[in-house]
Amino acid sequence: MSSATFATPPRHLIRLRDLSCEELHDLFDLSARLRGRAGRAGERPLDGRTVGLLFFRGSLRTRVSLEAAVHALGGHPINLSATSDFWELEHGEGAVMDGRAPEHIKDAAAVISAYVDAIAIRPALEGPDWKRARRDSAVSSWARHATVPVINMESALWHPLQALADLLTLRDTFGSFEGRRLTIHWVQSPSPATPAPVHSLVDAAMRLGMHVTVAQPQGFELDPVVLAEARAAGKDSGATLVETNDSKAAMQGAEVCYARSWRSLETWDNPTLAASRLARHARDEDWRITEELLALGENTRLMHAMPVRRNVEVSDEALDGPRSLVLDQAANRLHTQKALMTRILRP
Amino acid sequence: MSSATFATPPRHLIRLRDLSCEELHDLFDLSARLRGRAGRAGERPLDGRTVGLLFFRGSLRTRVSLEAAVHALGGHPINLSATSDFWELEHGEGAVMDGRAPEHIKDAAAVISAYVDAIAIRPALEGPDWKRARRDSAVSSWARHATVPVINMESALWHPLQALADLLTLRDTFGSFEGRRLTIHWVQSPSPATPAPVHSLVDAAMRLGMHVTVAQPQGFELDPVVLAEARAAGKDSGATLVETNDSKAAMQGAEVCYARSWRSLETWDNPTLAASRLARHARDEDWRITEELLALGENTRLMHAMPVRRNVEVSDEALDGPRSLVLDQAANRLHTQKALMTRILRP
Amino acid sequence: MSSATFATPPRHLIRLRDLSCEELHDLFDLSARLRGRAGRAGERPLDGRTVGLLFFRGSLRTRVSLEAAVHALGGHPINLSATSDFWELEHGEGAVMDGRAPEHIKDAAAVISAYVDAIAIRPALEGPDWKRARRDSAVSSWARHATVPVINMESALWHPLQALADLLTLRDTFGSFEGRRLTIHWVQSPSPATPAPVHSLVDAAMRLGMHVTVAQPQGFELDPVVLAEARAAGKDSGATLVETNDSKAAMQGAEVCYARSWRSLETWDNPTLAASRLARHARDEDWRITEELLALGENTRLMHAMPVRRNVEVSDEALDGPRSLVLDQAANRLHTQKALMTRILRP
Repeated sequence: MSSATFATPPRHLIRLRDLSCEELHDLFDLSARLRGRAGRAGERPLDGRTVGLLFFRGSLRTRVSLEAAVHALGGHPINLSATSDFWELEHGEGAVMDGRAPEHIKDAAAVISAYVDAIAIRPALEGPDWKRARRDSAVSSWARHATVPVINMESALWHPLQALADLLTLRDTFGSFEGRRLTIHWVQSPSPATPAPVHSLVDAAMRLGMHVTVAQPQGFELDPVVLAEARAAGKDSGATLVETNDSKAAMQGAEVCYARSWRSLETWDNPTLAASRLARHARDEDWRITEELLALGENTRLMHAMPVRRNVEVSDEALDGPRSLVLDQAANRLHTQKALMTRILRP
Repeated sequence: MSSATFATPPRHLIRLRDLSCEELHDLFDLSARLRGRAGRAGERPLDGRTVGLLFFRGSLRTRVSLEAAVHALGGHPINLSATSDFWELEHGEGAVMDGRAPEHIKDAAAVISAYVDAIAIRPALEGPDWKRARRDSAVSSWARHATVPVINMESALWHPLQALADLLTLRDTFGSFEGRRLTIHWVQSPSPATPAPVHSLVDAAMRLGMHVTVAQPQGFELDPVVLAEARAAGKDSGATLVETNDSKAAMQGAEVCYARSWRSLETWDNPTLAASRLARHARDEDWRITEELLALGENTRLMHAMPVRRNVEVSDEALDGPRSLVLDQAANRLHTQKALMTRILRP
Repeated sequence: MSSATFATPPRHLIRLRDLSCEELHDLFDLSARLRGRAGRAGERPLDGRTVGLLFFRGSLRTRVSLEAAVHALGGHPINLSATSDFWELEHGEGAVMDGRAPEHIKDAAAVISAYVDAIAIRPALEGPDWKRARRDSAVSSWARHATVPVINMESALWHPLQALADLLTLRDTFGSFEGRRLTIHWVQSPSPATPAPVHSLVDAAMRLGMHVTVAQPQGFELDPVVLAEARAAGKDSGATLVETNDSKAAMQGAEVCYARSWRSLETWDNPTLAASRLARHARDEDWRITEELLALGENTRLMHAMPVRRNVEVSDEALDGPRSLVLDQAANRLHTQKALMTRILRP
């Protein structure tokens, strides 16, 4: 990423495709440099700059790591959460606003843009079905109306900040991406999350030339459009993408096992059916990561974006063992976000 | 405002009368200078200073703009909201505190004064009737007991921070205040707000020599004591103040139309009567600002403090057209507040 | 406290015993120096450092004074409150996490440790009985799993931050601790608090050679293990500890009266019995601090950690009179916390 890259604001980060492969590599280089330095003495590239953090869903990791990143650079994060600080916003173009919403998103976005240098947003998950949720309409509206960069802190479809940390962890571990064998492995959970970090990771891994296997039970497939785009990207990079329902076969040759529990997209709008599908795999040892499962791969490392339900998604032994990269991933959130904010808010 | 003005703390800003006309002009000069500079490199007049923001009612604009202003000057805002951080406070002098409130406001104010360099407060609206609400007793109590400056972030009666931004916008647009024709225009809304920004603006406009017209339907008159004080101020400045129920006549000759929806003060304590009065004007085209209405004036500019219900209070066409100053007003919140904090917290 | 003391992180502050007497004296010296200086111009020992403030119970004084302290040193406080930012955490070692908690405290603590330089925590009060509550298991879990210093912002058993401010106030007033006569005096209240600040103060006072009297009605005794430890510490320092149910006798010779209302530990798990015991002392003039009661001592000064129910716990006359040190105590929270953070976060 050349330093001029973000020169014409606003340059948003809604998904990782908003960054070229070259820019990704530049970000990882910068992340590693910033991690090396304490970055504490006098360097304040974000001095006087503010970043608004808008949470319409709860967050712990993302909020703390982003606040810490902004401050480490001399900037000021303003934390806004929907419950206490926000009101309902109107999204319809031309709406006659005689309902509940007292403000239009176009006005909220324009006004906040006048006060802060970047807006990071974690939207509520929209419904009722996946077809609607996958539009990511809230984050898109903010991006359309803001006059400063908008950063996606996890929508239904994408989680670029998590994927940046995951990719840096892969680069730290293997030195490069090309030809490396990554298995994304669905795991059971009573409260499965979004597929967003996995979508972002698969897409970037394919652009970067990795061999990706996605293993999940039937009915828990990832978004087909995301997978099609990722496959297309692989044509240039030499990457491959395989989907399978066979948990053990997916581990053959895997250098990394990335565990994640996500909701069935097919039953997004049907909680009863979703619960019954989930129940099918509760206590199903195929869909829990253990040392035995990891041993099927080739010196396989374990990754997980957290939070993790111990001994349900992944065993204690695997999480706390020498294969585990989960704390490295978490720590890299700080460093990749410092790099990103440096590039996005360059004077 | 000479730099010594705020030398004997605490100097509060409860209403704009707490500043002389000379001080107002000084603030606008400083605001313009601060807007011109990025103000980002190394200038930290508020380094190590903290400002407590106490919200007993929600806020978006005020909170973000004030946090950003304090940080831009090197200071630290501490955001406190009543729902999560506060408990009920006793106000009665000599009270035997065996009820719900575990702390007296005099103690809370004294203690917070020991930790922060200024206290900004948005009090809850007090009831039951306007006679009680207009006393602004919560903000007055804080001012009486705090030993650091107290800044009113909108009480029932006054909103000096919004009025400062409005006045700077007027000065930016017209170069001066004297003799300019300002029409304050009530507009319909299903959720009318306080008259506070309008009270502050009318009072300052009269002190600064403007010709003010206030247009509202019968029963929606502004506070009579505020209007009487404003009229008295006009005797020295050459200002004039006209009240009318005729929406269109009020636009004749207007150089600025300032739209605002406020609750009927007469029916403050009677929601049923208030709703019935409001209903009378719903869909009443006289009380919605449109391009047609603005065209009755003389190259009339549009102002609104936001949030604005589009196509109910003001039409999209007017808000997004070339007459509109609404985003300038919002942006000026940042600059006037930087100027104010600089003066109030001068070492 | 030598500057090397905290060199091997994490060095926690769960109770004041985590600091030696020498370290306490060093902290008071540093507090006094930091109070003397404005500490505003350019000194930023915590530049780029962040401190996570985790509130599982409400706070006003502690939160504002700690945020202000961290900022005054150039650092950044991140305020996290359980209601909006947190989810339930699993504490059981080896638990199969198929219940409500989606994250284990060991993971939350490790991850937050990767982002911040210290963690300050105010845990929820645990039940059901005092025997369980006194284990302070939440703050202990955080301390066990965090890799950065953990600071206790008031558990059931201890409140070291309040006691540091109380001790500095005593030193400011009397010049030294040895041989000074301190009476801790239970007072009535419809909403009694924890004994935590009193536990911390008694323990430290005994280590520092004071003569301590604790006066409370029958059934409101302090924790016996805490008192036994404190007595043992007195053997070396020449301190003495007397318990009495006689309010007036306890004031004989007292140089300081420290008023505090705490819940009966015996009835911690029995609200009905607790209410009936409390009711016995409502309006009992023996357990309200007045000028008359203070006059029984020797030029007795009044202390209280606040919040204080005026004219229930202590009379207005006493609180606002010349004997009162309550605002000094509150102000010293800021200075002792600045000193503590400087020592704990030394580069």
